Amino acid sequence: MNLSISSMCRITGVVLVVIGVSMLPSILVSVIYDGFDVFMPFIYTMVITVILGLSLTKFFVHDSFKLKVRDGFLIVSLCWILSCFVGAVPFMVTGAIPNLADAFFESCSGFSTTGASILSDIEALPRGLLFWRSFTHWIGGLGILVITIALLPSLGIGGQNIAVSETPGPALDKITPKMSDTAKTLLVIYIMFTVVETILLMFGGMDLFDALIHTFGTVGTGGFSNYNTSVAHFDSTYIRIVITAFMFLCGVNFNLFYFSVTRGPKVFFEDSEFKLYLMFFGGTAIFLFAVLMISNTYGSFGEAAVDSAFQTASILTTTGFASADYETWPMICQMAILILMFMGGCSSSTSGGIKIVRIYVILQLIRRGVATRLHPNVVENIKLNGKNMPSDTVSAIANHMFLYIAMVFVGAFLIAFENTDLMTCFSSVITCLGNIGPGFGTIGPSENFSAMADFSKYLLSFYMIAGRLELYTLFILLTPKFWSRNY
Amino acid sequence: MNLSISSMCRITGVVLVVIGVSMLPSILVSVIYDGFDVFMPFIYTMVITVILGLSLTKFFVHDSFKLKVRDGFLIVSLCWILSCFVGAVPFMVTGAIPNLADAFFESCSGFSTTGASILSDIEALPRGLLFWRSFTHWIGGLGILVITIALLPSLGIGGQNIAVSETPGPALDKITPKMSDTAKTLLVIYIMFTVVETILLMFGGMDLFDALIHTFGTVGTGGFSNYNTSVAHFDSTYIRIVITAFMFLCGVNFNLFYFSVTRGPKVFFEDSEFKLYLMFFGGTAIFLFAVLMISNTYGSFGEAAVDSAFQTASILTTTGFASADYETWPMICQMAILILMFMGGCSSSTSGGIKIVRIYVILQLIRRGVATRLHPNVVENIKLNGKNMPSDTVSAIANHMFLYIAMVFVGAFLIAFENTDLMTCFSSVITCLGNIGPGFGTIGPSENFSAMADFSKYLLSFYMIAGRLELYTLFILLTPKFWSRNY
Repeated sequence: MNLSISSMCRITGVVLVVIGVSMLPSILVSVIYDGFDVFMPFIYTMVITVILGLSLTKFFVHDSFKLKVRDGFLIVSLCWILSCFVGAVPFMVTGAIPNLADAFFESCSGFSTTGASILSDIEALPRGLLFWRSFTHWIGGLGILVITIALLPSLGIGGQNIAVSETPGPALDKITPKMSDTAKTLLVIYIMFTVVETILLMFGGMDLFDALIHTFGTVGTGGFSNYNTSVAHFDSTYIRIVITAFMFLCGVNFNLFYFSVTRGPKVFFEDSEFKLYLMFFGGTAIFLFAVLMISNTYGSFGEAAVDSAFQTASILTTTGFASADYETWPMICQMAILILMFMGGCSSSTSGGIKIVRIYVILQLIRRGVATRLHPNVVENIKLNGKNMPSDTVSAIANHMFLYIAMVFVGAFLIAFENTDLMTCFSSVITCLGNIGPGFGTIGPSENFSAMADFSKYLLSFYMIAGRLELYTLFILLTPKFWSRNY
Repeated sequence: MNLSISSMCRITGVVLVVIGVSMLPSILVSVIYDGFDVFMPFIYTMVITVILGLSLTKFFVHDSFKLKVRDGFLIVSLCWILSCFVGAVPFMVTGAIPNLADAFFESCSGFSTTGASILSDIEALPRGLLFWRSFTHWIGGLGILVITIALLPSLGIGGQNIAVSETPGPALDKITPKMSDTAKTLLVIYIMFTVVETILLMFGGMDLFDALIHTFGTVGTGGFSNYNTSVAHFDSTYIRIVITAFMFLCGVNFNLFYFSVTRGPKVFFEDSEFKLYLMFFGGTAIFLFAVLMISNTYGSFGEAAVDSAFQTASILTTTGFASADYETWPMICQMAILILMFMGGCSSSTSGGIKIVRIYVILQLIRRGVATRLHPNVVENIKLNGKNMPSDTVSAIANHMFLYIAMVFVGAFLIAFENTDLMTCFSSVITCLGNIGPGFGTIGPSENFSAMADFSKYLLSFYMIAGRLELYTLFILLTPKFWSRNY
């Protein structure tokens, strides 16, 4: 262990300040809507967090110590876990969610943009906390897109190595030599999406508060709503269409938006991942619609179409909003949704899951496996966007998949100690690791995670962060090798 | 397509003769125990099959045409499908299982040594057919171990290429230059196991008929019993221990038995796969035992121990015998059994599933994935028995896993059209693809597949054969490339 403690502390300090300051809008909401006993503890939390953060930043002098790859893993993981703990404090000090396991779960679910909840009655939560809960989605989504690319380099850490752990899937291209320029562009796109969706939702009759909450849930692909019935609360086709559109957009590789500014919209259709993403979305939505109509689950043509598209986008992009309880749909629809849960959106988006680009590579590997059996001596390369993918990247993707599958089994096994049904064990792990939100069984879209044991809640919280950090970042800290002296 | 039709027909003819002749013992049983209306149609079936086979063999002259790899895939697949069809005929002509989908399913389940059944009342079946049903396990197990190594070379086909498709997992070593010598040795071991187990079971109070039926089910790791409650019918600890021991033995790589004759028993403990197999078996059995005792599911210490070991061996080796209904066990036991369903026994055994050696490689790949993140420039090799595994073999294993997973999802999706529950969809596919037998949900150890639609039965039959032929052999026939002219 030769990690610079002072660098660690400085970075931790900055993160604390950021989280503390980001409580400001929620506190403003709290002051307007909630009672004294809610907003005062909230304000204390913010003040203490910021002071703690500032003192950590100032206390340690800047040293020229170069952080190594390993330090990056540790810092990124610690910052996420710390953010989740700090994010849980407002829930606890206001007495809204008194149990630590519950508050931590809710906070992890927020920052990791999962959207799973332990709240049985969401609407009973004070408005300031509802805002905070959803705002963590927005910060979490931004965090994945930007913070680690823009913030860490300014602290003297080369962003390249760290970014590896946070970039979902292989890097599309070297975007630009100046990482923080990219980060600023991504930030602009992210904020633009936020503003536009909020305005569009308000056109649909939502007030500013509801519009912001659902926008945060959408652009972060998180899925927290402030209503017990989620988006189904709004009996409006327009609202569903707007949210569907933005869920879809936020599941797209944000680099493509950046490129499209200079190179035009053709960049989307030159991207193999985007094309497959579009195919999955269109194919599943049309399939669900057809089944819902044939099985007479819906009376209205339009409603079935909108709910099919909404639910497909919600699960595919790992948002997790519900416009309908899919557990009441025919089994084949549920199966389609369950399979979709593994996919996730595009790489470099706010979505979770395995990511389309990995599925794309896996499908090519299967095809190659068949081809190799027919022509043992012909070597076919795995291609992405017309270019050969280095074999290292291909192995990394295969290893990622195996770790993913192993984690699903290990997690489901540990949850099974609760004596719940097998489907709940598996779907709770899949939905948390994929940062989706709802599952099947006792954690379906109309239920929540409250009935689970504290142990399971901590485990699933760990899984949410692990999923958000592309498994390895957090997982690597659990290996003895990481902590060995002669590393 | 440049396949030699005459070679194809000759091989098909030999297979028909073999299947026909192998009906002889069952017909003998039928003549002794069953009525005229059962054994006569059975005899007709045999005579017609043999005559058809002989005429195919004699009709086409021996040509010196060299079969290519592709022809091997086609022949192996066709012979298996043909055997399963012929094996279904006795069930249909005797009126015991009148529906083709049912009879074909039962025959596929037999030859593929799966042990899944569509029979609600097994005991109602005439004894001759019960014997035939179990004997297909024995032939199927032998088929996997020997036929394609010994028979095909004698027909002028190089066994090496064909054997690839039937050898589960990577070849342990080049066993001996003379493949058919090995085949003979394997045959001797297989017959020895059969004889010894039969005698040991008769010592436990079984009559010859019951002893043979359960021996066929064990050595072929199939799992058909002639009693509705499977092995639980016998209230004997001794019988359970004997069957557990032989299930375990038949899940071991048969090459190890061959080696142990010349090199002594140390070969077992020099084999990485065997050691992991032993660990999985011991670990799971002890775990199940502990949970069953703690949860007070069993009153008796001994009974819990025996049933734990029995059920572990039964699922791990993909036999599928039931000494207890594990769906009444605590959830964590069911979860352990569900996870075990993916494993399978060792390569070059009669068991199905993914095979321990592949799990062993996958675990190393996960470990390597973590290591690569820590030391990006260090390349670690995948090792088996202390030797580096060629990267081609590693990719082949990874591709196999992905195809396996994809097939599970595609299969579960297709079964879901039945509108059954999600767990039944997945476990029916997993249990058939892994050649296990029982599953969870409506196909648990105390239920059967009779309620499923004909379409599902055909699909699952296909999966049983695909699983038995290590996926690619059969799967490859479905690709357009296989049938293309310029192959």
